[in-house]
Amino acid sequence: MGKIASRSPFAPDEIVQLPPIEGVRFATAEAGIRYRGRTDLMVATFDPGTTVAGVFTQSKTASAPVLACRKHLKKETAQLLIVNSGNANAFTGKRGRDAVDLTVDAGAKAADCARHDVFVASTGVIGEPLEAEKFAHLIDGMVKNAEPDAFEAAARAIMTTDTYPKVASRRALIGDVEVTINGFCKGAGMIAPDMATMLCFIFTDAAIAAKPLQALLSAHVETTFNAMTVDGDTSTSDTCLVFATGTAAARGQEPVTKTGSKKLKAFSAALHNLMQDLAVQVAKDGEGLSKFVTFIVEGAESAKAARKIALACANSPILKTAIAGEDPNWGRVVMAVGKSGEAADRDKLSIWFGDLCVAREGERAAEYDEATAAAYMKNREIVIRIDVGVGDASGHVWTCDLTHDYVSINADYRS
Amino acid sequence: MGKIASRSPFAPDEIVQLPPIEGVRFATAEAGIRYRGRTDLMVATFDPGTTVAGVFTQSKTASAPVLACRKHLKKETAQLLIVNSGNANAFTGKRGRDAVDLTVDAGAKAADCARHDVFVASTGVIGEPLEAEKFAHLIDGMVKNAEPDAFEAAARAIMTTDTYPKVASRRALIGDVEVTINGFCKGAGMIAPDMATMLCFIFTDAAIAAKPLQALLSAHVETTFNAMTVDGDTSTSDTCLVFATGTAAARGQEPVTKTGSKKLKAFSAALHNLMQDLAVQVAKDGEGLSKFVTFIVEGAESAKAARKIALACANSPILKTAIAGEDPNWGRVVMAVGKSGEAADRDKLSIWFGDLCVAREGERAAEYDEATAAAYMKNREIVIRIDVGVGDASGHVWTCDLTHDYVSINADYRS
Repeated sequence: MGKIASRSPFAPDEIVQLPPIEGVRFATAEAGIRYRGRTDLMVATFDPGTTVAGVFTQSKTASAPVLACRKHLKKETAQLLIVNSGNANAFTGKRGRDAVDLTVDAGAKAADCARHDVFVASTGVIGEPLEAEKFAHLIDGMVKNAEPDAFEAAARAIMTTDTYPKVASRRALIGDVEVTINGFCKGAGMIAPDMATMLCFIFTDAAIAAKPLQALLSAHVETTFNAMTVDGDTSTSDTCLVFATGTAAARGQEPVTKTGSKKLKAFSAALHNLMQDLAVQVAKDGEGLSKFVTFIVEGAESAKAARKIALACANSPILKTAIAGEDPNWGRVVMAVGKSGEAADRDKLSIWFGDLCVAREGERAAEYDEATAAAYMKNREIVIRIDVGVGDASGHVWTCDLTHDYVSINADYRS
Repeated sequence: MGKIASRSPFAPDEIVQLPPIEGVRFATAEAGIRYRGRTDLMVATFDPGTTVAGVFTQSKTASAPVLACRKHLKKETAQLLIVNSGNANAFTGKRGRDAVDLTVDAGAKAADCARHDVFVASTGVIGEPLEAEKFAHLIDGMVKNAEPDAFEAAARAIMTTDTYPKVASRRALIGDVEVTINGFCKGAGMIAPDMATMLCFIFTDAAIAAKPLQALLSAHVETTFNAMTVDGDTSTSDTCLVFATGTAAARGQEPVTKTGSKKLKAFSAALHNLMQDLAVQVAKDGEGLSKFVTFIVEGAESAKAARKIALACANSPILKTAIAGEDPNWGRVVMAVGKSGEAADRDKLSIWFGDLCVAREGERAAEYDEATAAAYMKNREIVIRIDVGVGDASGHVWTCDLTHDYVSINADYRS
């Protein structure tokens, strides 16, 4: 696992225990793919009739498992998910495709389902061949022994440099039937918002067809996972999948088949909220971080422009290191706004660190006081708000600072 | 000057002494703008008839001096250049414009020239008002006492976090008359290729009209300064100016007035070579660097696409930290190629570290040997070559690694 820095200062004291989702069961194993003394293989089984939606990395060098998921997604159903950590099975050529085939075959046989009902994801080192034969024989037993009450164990098995498992749960009404949405995900480096950053798996007992489920996922990813960055580096393996078992139908939930159905309003809000929770958790476990930072951009030409400006800030090494150094260096915010390429009125630009206005309409604010600003920077959570003065749109990005520990972790990840 | 790490490992033992350029004189002073015990103000005077060309930052929050230079450039002539370090006079609103006005007025009076013949540049902290009244009174004496043989002193006066002055000189024939081109520039953080990165000043005695001079500068900047990055952060103040005194005309050089004139072939080559030399020097003094890295991309759809892919590599924090850690982590090269958004054939992608092929046609090379690759990474200069397998175009980018020292320098630049 390389050099692991100390736990994130945002690591929760206790991991929230998620309620079971009817129709979903988990198993984990120590397959010894790369790590020793920890789980690195996870399977989730789904009752027949489960629908699935997904979003994936936009990388031009997407991994073999991502290509398989994209293909299987067309059939809109799922019965098995197999995830390994320690090896991304990316840029592994024909051997990578063979490893996926072997895994999918073993899964389809174990779950007695079609190949296209098996979804796979891999995370870890890029370019090393994944020896699927080392773990394929375990899948059958795992499927048979899978249990519903094992979300935390599943979340732990897919971690790489994460310092804590990231889980969340929400409830929502569809009609008058309460459904549950659980999710977990992993970060923690090579994280940038380009579709569904990192690995994220979401499960619900709601009865929703694949197309409306996909529409919700695609919409919400923009303001959740795609509004979060650790280091601006887009993984080859980013995958976010939502599985809906539909078991709530047995409790009277009328299945939703139409995209944009008003019946999904509360579900949509709960799903968005859960995705936001998980995205924030990923940023709060960014490699080596000491601070969690929110950039809010207002007065932009469009929501897209606002987010692009916020991203230019959130991905600026020189600004992120200043934040790590607790330096209220708002000049670097100006630089980042300028380099974003989006419209901003230099003479109307205003910047706040927390509630403190540091710059107003193109120059240092009259009330600016270095000591007050420096005191604010000692906070563990920093909010930087920017009004670019050209329109009415706003957007935000969550990120973390860039520290010595980030360098230490990444200078020696493989050894 | 903040915390200065030790000198770059690429700092030359001796600074090359540049020959004088007829018609150009320099003076420097300790104005105490921010630094103590070092020069921070530089003026260069030019004989009447000097032509000028320039390229500037594309930042939307360009500094007041950049706006003034852009305006003055339209008149195509120059008699004075005034540069201060320690304060960028960027995002300083009306006070910033007033500071430029005061400086230009003092310069025009001292050099007895039009205001538009005065060029100004500032580098240092963003957002702090520049108190030009602290140094404007010095300009008159500096202009009067300027001397031709002071390139190194001038180059030192404009440094910020640079650990050595960056100077270069070339000679070329125009017709049968030899002309000289001298240049110097400064880095060393907030450096990314978006027009003329950083401050660079080039001087020649050649007689060349402003328009052909501008054409040469604009063309060459693409493959020199714009093919170099330290941290991907574009400054508000990037400025590159070329001054041609035309004094070689007295030695028989026929003045060149036409853009694209074949008479400038050797001059153009020498100018390109000098700009490349200076760009490499900037990358070799990138903040906190331990290694100088060249990314060469071949087999791309276009030269622009090749450079964009090389830039995605050169600006990737996770790849740059791996290089700092001497980890031959070519998987991160795959990631960076993928995130560039440019066309690449995953199954034809090949990567070399120096002469060592680490990946061939989409997977780890058969001859790959971790020990050999790790040994190569111990070199101070690293060349990573990538064939993306979709076309015939190539491009390159120079950069440095991302180290603990970069974090240290930037976490505490202002204090």
